[in-house]
Amino acid sequence: MTSIAATFVRNGKKIVAIGRNYADHVKELNNAVPKEPFFFLKPTSSYLPSGGNIEIPRGIVAHHEVELGLVIGRGGRDISQADSLSHIAGYALAVDMTARNLQDEVKKKGLPWSAVKGFDTFTPISTFVPKSEVTDPQNLDLWLKINGVVKQDGNTSKMIFAIPRLIEHVSSIMTLEEGDLILTGTPSGIGAINPGDRIECALADPTTKRELAKLEFG
Amino acid sequence: MTSIAATFVRNGKKIVAIGRNYADHVKELNNAVPKEPFFFLKPTSSYLPSGGNIEIPRGIVAHHEVELGLVIGRGGRDISQADSLSHIAGYALAVDMTARNLQDEVKKKGLPWSAVKGFDTFTPISTFVPKSEVTDPQNLDLWLKINGVVKQDGNTSKMIFAIPRLIEHVSSIMTLEEGDLILTGTPSGIGAINPGDRIECALADPTTKRELAKLEFG
Ligand SMILES: [Mg+2]
Ligand SMILES: [Mg+2]
Ligand SMILES: [Mg+2]
Repeated sequence: MTSIAATFVRNGKKIVAIGRNYADHVKELNNAVPKEPFFFLKPTSSYLPSGGNIEIPRGIVAHHEVELGLVIGRGGRDISQADSLSHIAGYALAVDMTARNLQDEVKKKGLPWSAVKGFDTFTPISTFVPKSEVTDPQNLDLWLKINGVVKQDGNTSKMIFAIPRLIEHVSSIMTLEEGDLILTGTPSGIGAINPGDRIECALADPTTKRELAKLEFG
Repeated sequence: MTSIAATFVRNGKKIVAIGRNYADHVKELNNAVPKEPFFFLKPTSSYLPSGGNIEIPRGIVAHHEVELGLVIGRGGRDISQADSLSHIAGYALAVDMTARNLQDEVKKKGLPWSAVKGFDTFTPISTFVPKSEVTDPQNLDLWLKINGVVKQDGNTSKMIFAIPRLIEHVSSIMTLEEGDLILTGTPSGIGAINPGDRIECALADPTTKRELAKLEFG
């Protein structure tokens, strides 16, 4: 039997993406370090399975943000930090593509981020990684290369708000359901992807030295 | 057989909500009339079926915005205005609840609207109205009363961007799927709901003089 969590790309309902959760990334965008987590929603229609092609709309500067995704197994609301990890079914590697030039505009105008983050193909996503394969989600390496050159290279230990705090915060506002994905923010090194670029990303467990997920797109 | 569209509250994946689509509402919030439609996402976890109780988090000023909802039947992307109505399976009456004081803050800071619009119970929703019951979606009356006093009383003919333009715009950015809901904006008269208030809303067809949907919550 395949669970909704294991098939979250097809059957999940929401993507909740945390902003500004790595200090080095906050600095590179000249943003303030947040006092509490904040998030935005991406539509599940933006998923792009590994091996696909990203579509960059005309006039859009499309930035990559490689991120660890948490796949919710057991739903809930007002989840405590102590309980939080038991609500996770597994993980995925994702890229939170962002129309950076449009985002600069909407931020100035106080408008929502939904279009900027929500174009079709703007959430490249790996296959599902069951939690049993992960030693410690707060110690995973993730990197992104463009045409063979490393652009982002981080570790989830560098999050400003740790995973339990993220789940507590999101579930204090909206009920989490099986198959929901939480994106946990991106380390530094973000930048533009151009048509024809070849993108490779990986998620690895430094404890077991195993590669947990690979994500490629063009 | 019950379709995903008819059961959109349980089975739909996204809610796309249009902002500032009635001139009288744009004026009451001192906003600029938009040159093209804009939207934000609400999570489907925020649906509150008629008869339920709204939860207003401590410290939140929760404003009502009564709106016509379009329930997508046939999905698609880059839908033309000419084809747009054929993608609608039916309608619903909704209230786009908004944490207005938080929204004022995030707008100033250029932050996303997702939390402000996305609390559990922040999308009270009527039952599904099949399109066959509606003479013309661009000529429907909708009103909202608090404790018996009319607060909002509008007609969908007053939209700045008509329904075909909304579907064209949203589907140019993100694929629409069966069961998705598009909220089409609110007429003037928005204001705060207080704990204990009794809210009644209705959607009516002035051509047939029939009430199409009723929505009540406390
Ligand atoms: Mg991101
Ligand atoms: Mg959704
Ligand atoms: Mg609204």
